[in-house]
Amino acid sequence: MRQSELFTKVSKSVQKDEASVNAKLLVQAGFIHKEMAGVYSFLPLGLRVLNKIEGIIREEMSALGGQEILLTSLQDPEVWKKSGRWDDKVVDNWFKTKLVNDTEVGIANTHEEPLTVLMKEYVSSYRDLPCYVYQFQTKFRNELRAKSGLMRVREFLMKDLYSFSRNEKEFKEFYEKCAAAYLKIFSRVGLGSYTFRTFASGGSFSKYSDEFQAISEAGEDIIYVNKEKKIAINKEVYNDEGLAECGLKKEDLQEEKAIEIGNIFPLGTKYSTALGLNFKDEQGKINPVVMGCYGIGLGRLMGTIAEIFHDDKGLIWPKTVAPFSVHLISLNGAEKDSEKIYDNLQKQGTEVLYDDRKDKSAGEKFAEADLIGMPLRIVISERTLAENSVELKKRDEEKIKLIKIQDVIQKVF
Amino acid sequence: MRQSELFTKVSKSVQKDEASVNAKLLVQAGFIHKEMAGVYSFLPLGLRVLNKIEGIIREEMSALGGQEILLTSLQDPEVWKKSGRWDDKVVDNWFKTKLVNDTEVGIANTHEEPLTVLMKEYVSSYRDLPCYVYQFQTKFRNELRAKSGLMRVREFLMKDLYSFSRNEKEFKEFYEKCAAAYLKIFSRVGLGSYTFRTFASGGSFSKYSDEFQAISEAGEDIIYVNKEKKIAINKEVYNDEGLAECGLKKEDLQEEKAIEIGNIFPLGTKYSTALGLNFKDEQGKINPVVMGCYGIGLGRLMGTIAEIFHDDKGLIWPKTVAPFSVHLISLNGAEKDSEKIYDNLQKQGTEVLYDDRKDKSAGEKFAEADLIGMPLRIVISERTLAENSVELKKRDEEKIKLIKIQDVIQKVF
Repeated sequence: MRQSELFTKVSKSVQKDEASVNAKLLVQAGFIHKEMAGVYSFLPLGLRVLNKIEGIIREEMSALGGQEILLTSLQDPEVWKKSGRWDDKVVDNWFKTKLVNDTEVGIANTHEEPLTVLMKEYVSSYRDLPCYVYQFQTKFRNELRAKSGLMRVREFLMKDLYSFSRNEKEFKEFYEKCAAAYLKIFSRVGLGSYTFRTFASGGSFSKYSDEFQAISEAGEDIIYVNKEKKIAINKEVYNDEGLAECGLKKEDLQEEKAIEIGNIFPLGTKYSTALGLNFKDEQGKINPVVMGCYGIGLGRLMGTIAEIFHDDKGLIWPKTVAPFSVHLISLNGAEKDSEKIYDNLQKQGTEVLYDDRKDKSAGEKFAEADLIGMPLRIVISERTLAENSVELKKRDEEKIKLIKIQDVIQKVF
Repeated sequence: MRQSELFTKVSKSVQKDEASVNAKLLVQAGFIHKEMAGVYSFLPLGLRVLNKIEGIIREEMSALGGQEILLTSLQDPEVWKKSGRWDDKVVDNWFKTKLVNDTEVGIANTHEEPLTVLMKEYVSSYRDLPCYVYQFQTKFRNELRAKSGLMRVREFLMKDLYSFSRNEKEFKEFYEKCAAAYLKIFSRVGLGSYTFRTFASGGSFSKYSDEFQAISEAGEDIIYVNKEKKIAINKEVYNDEGLAECGLKKEDLQEEKAIEIGNIFPLGTKYSTALGLNFKDEQGKINPVVMGCYGIGLGRLMGTIAEIFHDDKGLIWPKTVAPFSVHLISLNGAEKDSEKIYDNLQKQGTEVLYDDRKDKSAGEKFAEADLIGMPLRIVISERTLAENSVELKKRDEEKIKLIKIQDVIQKVF
């Protein structure tokens, strides 16, 4: 894409009304736009990151046998009353609204209830199970205090997968497969070495659950990490019982601040029993379906990447989630050759942000490129052309390499 | 995809609580699921159609120079008060809700206001214009009466593009380009010969606007069509003044029922003036930006395709939007060869729904295939294998062709 055509621009001033690093950088670089506290729009560069993350998650969920659907935000209260979660005293972050005829409806903060009811249409026998259903869908959460930029918001895109199994053993097998898929996802988006499967409280669902925590100073959680075993335990269950349950010893653990970037929950038969999702087993006996749920907030993941990968000049995107792989910067006098390289890179399928702007100095272009943070910068100028070359610089390295124009495609690929 | 793994199943009974053909068929075939009146979830087959439609629209909007973003559903009332559209007496289909601290917020039914405010960050000079911004985003509309299946719903995915131009001439040029892109979109999804650009009332925005109407008995609109010129006029402006404005004569027109599948609106400077979106022109003069908006409801488009392309056996999807191009049906005794053909078709990049179920009769499989409506059916049985062949049948033709197995790939491609 030509930067001259990109409608967003980087802002010269730091965002004073944003307290968090992720929001400061993402707003300043034109990735997101704050609509209200805890409500952010995604601009072209930001949406490209979101889509890359979504693509990676979709591949891994599909590889698990997940089938994609799209549930609705508007919710019939009757369904939620059956599980006991309509009451604001039970779930304190509902947004509720009313139809013209004054009937109350909910705006979904999660989707266990409606999906459980939906599955009743399709599940009746052991032959219909197991199955795994997921979506990328907006969740609305009426947070008392929105904070930390993309970390705690009132509206966000979430991948939520739900598993439906015949028994605990079948459930647990999938649960472990999904845990492995989660580690793969976090590794693919660049957070592999920062992310720990973390033993945590089960909340209202079950005694324990698993979180995926990325170590970061911006984190709101405290976890205790065993780096060798690549696992951790959340402070909330950091006691003798919790430690025994997950087989960790205090002396091997190290305290860290971390951001929860995913969680997986055993749901047991809580919703299937409340809402009547049953199946007939091979012996003809009726049993409730054993469920699990598996969530990743896409915006929070993007915010976490921004928190972990930046320096004082700006963002540093991992290649897999960068809006563009290459930032091609043309300086005065190099227009013709820049156009040629831009065309060639695009023909090879490389995603290029092409700074073809004529009214910006080299210094401005470099500063903006650092702020936006594409993984690879290519500079073409009269000076590099004199040597029939271009300059290559990785965003996370200081080293600048001069390489011959004919080698560009090969080097980038 | 293996049909044995698809969690949805077709329902044997017709949906009695659905009055419209599109909802009857789409629910029965397992494409959508009704959550409440006017609120439908999309199941795997339905979501695939929705994604195909979205892909086509995205290509055409991108070709126009549109830049994709994603705005939010939660809306700050202050922004809407400035344009006068917060008041329920002015806009009667708002869903409104409240933050925990009792502050009222809106749930977006459209996005002119927030986008106009957002653009103020990036537009200040004639050099920043024109620009075109679009999104695929859920709209919430508090309809008094939801009806006609996917046609009039309370929550739906919409593509909305907004144009920002320096003057009327520049606006009008883009408006015409976008009108042409819309006809291309409707043609690509299979509705080309049914769709007419239709001169219509401008509503609250301007005197006139343009709708895209698809002729269908299920339509709620009455239009008068000039088939030769491929244009029409909506009944609401079917008077001497309207006819003169669009250069049509009563005697050349034919009355038809039609479904509005798209609309494009001149917005003039209504929102830019109300919200202060101005730019400095080449002479240093400050002017309000000239805007336009361009909408397509994706679910309604899918519903329209279902209304127009079906017979008494079920749906008949155009190839470009079908969930799968091929429905491969394996009958008893043909398992081994079916698997081979399935693999080969997939390797060629063909999207195949593979009926590998062992507990269904040939009759059941054929009936379901007709209901689901993939464009091409391939049947493999012991009988066809005896001739080293498979049966090919297009969903919209009666003719069945026997072709040699080695020719399948080539025929499908």
